[in-house]
Amino acid sequence: MDEFVQTVKDLLETHQWQELKGLLAPKNPNDLAHIFAEFVPSERAVLFRLLEKQEAVEVFESLPLEEQQELLGSFKQEQLREIVEHMSPDDRAYLLDEVPAKVAKRLLGLLTPEERAATALLLGYGENTAGRIMTPEYIDLKSFVTVGQALEKIRRVGLDKETIYYSYVTDEKRRLIGIVSIRQLVLADPETPVTDIMEQDIIFAHTDDDQEEVAHKMQKYDLLAIPVVDREDRLVGIITHDDVIDIIQDEVTEDIYRLGAVEVPEQNYFKSRIMVVSSHRLGWLLFLLVANTITGNIIIHYSDLLESVIALAAFVPLLTGSGGNIGSQTSTVFVRGIALKEITAKNALRLIFREVWVGLFLGALLGLIVIIWAYWLQGNWMVAIAVGFSLILISTLATFFGSIWPLIFQRLGLDPAMVSAPFISTVVDVLGALTYFTVASFILSYAR
Amino acid sequence: MDEFVQTVKDLLETHQWQELKGLLAPKNPNDLAHIFAEFVPSERAVLFRLLEKQEAVEVFESLPLEEQQELLGSFKQEQLREIVEHMSPDDRAYLLDEVPAKVAKRLLGLLTPEERAATALLLGYGENTAGRIMTPEYIDLKSFVTVGQALEKIRRVGLDKETIYYSYVTDEKRRLIGIVSIRQLVLADPETPVTDIMEQDIIFAHTDDDQEEVAHKMQKYDLLAIPVVDREDRLVGIITHDDVIDIIQDEVTEDIYRLGAVEVPEQNYFKSRIMVVSSHRLGWLLFLLVANTITGNIIIHYSDLLESVIALAAFVPLLTGSGGNIGSQTSTVFVRGIALKEITAKNALRLIFREVWVGLFLGALLGLIVIIWAYWLQGNWMVAIAVGFSLILISTLATFFGSIWPLIFQRLGLDPAMVSAPFISTVVDVLGALTYFTVASFILSYAR
Repeated sequence: MDEFVQTVKDLLETHQWQELKGLLAPKNPNDLAHIFAEFVPSERAVLFRLLEKQEAVEVFESLPLEEQQELLGSFKQEQLREIVEHMSPDDRAYLLDEVPAKVAKRLLGLLTPEERAATALLLGYGENTAGRIMTPEYIDLKSFVTVGQALEKIRRVGLDKETIYYSYVTDEKRRLIGIVSIRQLVLADPETPVTDIMEQDIIFAHTDDDQEEVAHKMQKYDLLAIPVVDREDRLVGIITHDDVIDIIQDEVTEDIYRLGAVEVPEQNYFKSRIMVVSSHRLGWLLFLLVANTITGNIIIHYSDLLESVIALAAFVPLLTGSGGNIGSQTSTVFVRGIALKEITAKNALRLIFREVWVGLFLGALLGLIVIIWAYWLQGNWMVAIAVGFSLILISTLATFFGSIWPLIFQRLGLDPAMVSAPFISTVVDVLGALTYFTVASFILSYAR
Repeated sequence: MDEFVQTVKDLLETHQWQELKGLLAPKNPNDLAHIFAEFVPSERAVLFRLLEKQEAVEVFESLPLEEQQELLGSFKQEQLREIVEHMSPDDRAYLLDEVPAKVAKRLLGLLTPEERAATALLLGYGENTAGRIMTPEYIDLKSFVTVGQALEKIRRVGLDKETIYYSYVTDEKRRLIGIVSIRQLVLADPETPVTDIMEQDIIFAHTDDDQEEVAHKMQKYDLLAIPVVDREDRLVGIITHDDVIDIIQDEVTEDIYRLGAVEVPEQNYFKSRIMVVSSHRLGWLLFLLVANTITGNIIIHYSDLLESVIALAAFVPLLTGSGGNIGSQTSTVFVRGIALKEITAKNALRLIFREVWVGLFLGALLGLIVIIWAYWLQGNWMVAIAVGFSLILISTLATFFGSIWPLIFQRLGLDPAMVSAPFISTVVDVLGALTYFTVASFILSYAR
């Protein structure tokens, strides 16, 4: 790869366009998109002009949105028209959605009336809906055709369609009544009516379904494509398998960011400006900062106790830290369990109980270790016992709150992933400090 | 769904087998697998016997491993043979891999010699390799056939194969020389030799490639299936698109668990025993417990300072907490950025710098707020300034360590996701306490 990039750079510098053209032509569009990332925008624009039209369109579709936008400015009018007109309608709608309104208008002006209509249709649906990511390029069959006529139609129009693996059978009102795979068509006798072999138990999506739900449905049923119907059950598009993985990856990135207490940015984090990035982190930080003050106030409240037995202070970070860690572990597996639908309304209570048992068990184990560890460090049995006993309580509380908070968030209609490690650590810090000082006061007053 | 389950339960109780059969028959296997989860094992075994053979196999394949194992015991010999023999070889290999050796042997004994050979082949490859998840059921074409002959062959053998969307062209030594999609075959003239239309620029995997790499390759190139070749470049199997999403989900779960400082369990977390679950959490907890002790010792070390200005203690949780939160945010986006290959060796340095700028900016912003907040709480300007200034330093340090640790782990050949929120919080706690007391000593000594 690196060697290839170097060769391209050399040829670019020495203006050997023909050699470059020959070098780029046999490459896969996805590989080219990756290779292009190694060049500065002006070089990239030159390389683009050396590609065949179809190849250029495919490379362009494979580029990240930011690079697409950057390139748009460097195209000549004619080339721009060719690229944008030949993009698939869903990719084009996504691009038009994100460029400044002025650019979008200019791009729309370059399209043929039909292409414009197809794009406008997609742009009419809400963001993140099935309608927005579907393509109107599918093969539909009338209900009265035979297998032979269907294959004939696929041969005639197939090359233009994003997927020909399924064909959709519609009635006279354009309502979807069945699906045939090309597999079934190829395996069947040409004289058979398609209605005889079509699957009537159709799995489909509505235009206003959330794209994540559609992705999960396609994953659940292992579908290569899913048909999308409007409110009158008329077929309006299909969503293909290559969109599913992208949606799932986006969704997972969202969950991971939230688990790290970062608000989900609209653009790629690493390509946003510092101010934008900071603003996505400030909200949680301020909230948690205030919450952390509570822990501080608890410490101040018990300053007499701390002053009388200074050894107690040495274990505050250990206890609040361990509590936060146990709570984070719990909330992490619960958030993921909810996302993967392993935790349901039915088993939630049992799993919370189970988790609290885990907390008690971990707390007992760590508590024993900590008693010995604390005595060895500070040489005070009373303090060591207070620390160990507190850890058992804190660990149990941490698993309880770590498991119940994500479920509460879900019940409130919020994303359970918002129960981040920092969030749960802060909650458990407060509880941990309170528990520790209460236990320590009790044990020490008893000891005196 | 719930209504359906109730109807099934009623029919089960009143032994109306024919009605039940009629009710279950038209359902989709994936839906049935979900519905079956609502029943106790003995009921499930009864329901299974009411399904048609092919339907039963498909439902069985859709069940989670634990439920498959549970069901195996309840089948009669003949039914067992039918189910296991008709499973696809990769699903079967996965099942055999996980059941006790005695059960595996019994199951293998039920297979035809060919099926046994196909399964043993897969079992010969290491876990998590392409060899293990491939299916040997693909369509191969000799290089001298025409499009018409190829379609004829697909019609003849197609129904047995897991995917017929691609056919693989091999030479006389069974080496893979090209791929034709059914799309190309349907669109081409029947007299054309397949070698004329086949794709020769093949994207393939080796049997010992890691399954995650293969999944990423299939994702990158939007493939429905990828051919797998052995060391002599001979075609031995294919991996189909339905495996890709599962692999990606598993991989993401692994990352999320590690980010929450939970070791990745071999079995489903929610179905493992409490002892197993606890053992997967204990390692990190013990390690972090020791690390937390360091923070405690720092506090003890500065106990004279704390006793002289007790207000200082109130802000320890705020500073270590905020530092941990900022560090967790940074490590989260960096770990995800590395996983998605957005952070590369080339841009890593620039992104670390950028992140440290974000830290400085956030620190300055929060620092200003905290100075006012701290003065309002404790009424001591010196303490307030020490807290604010420390926060700027801690925030900058937190972003530095949060961004550099995942990259160090990657360089050491470890999973960057092991830089969990608890891990980075603990590291930053130590640094935070040190920074705070150093700054406070300096400012207070200057003030006196």
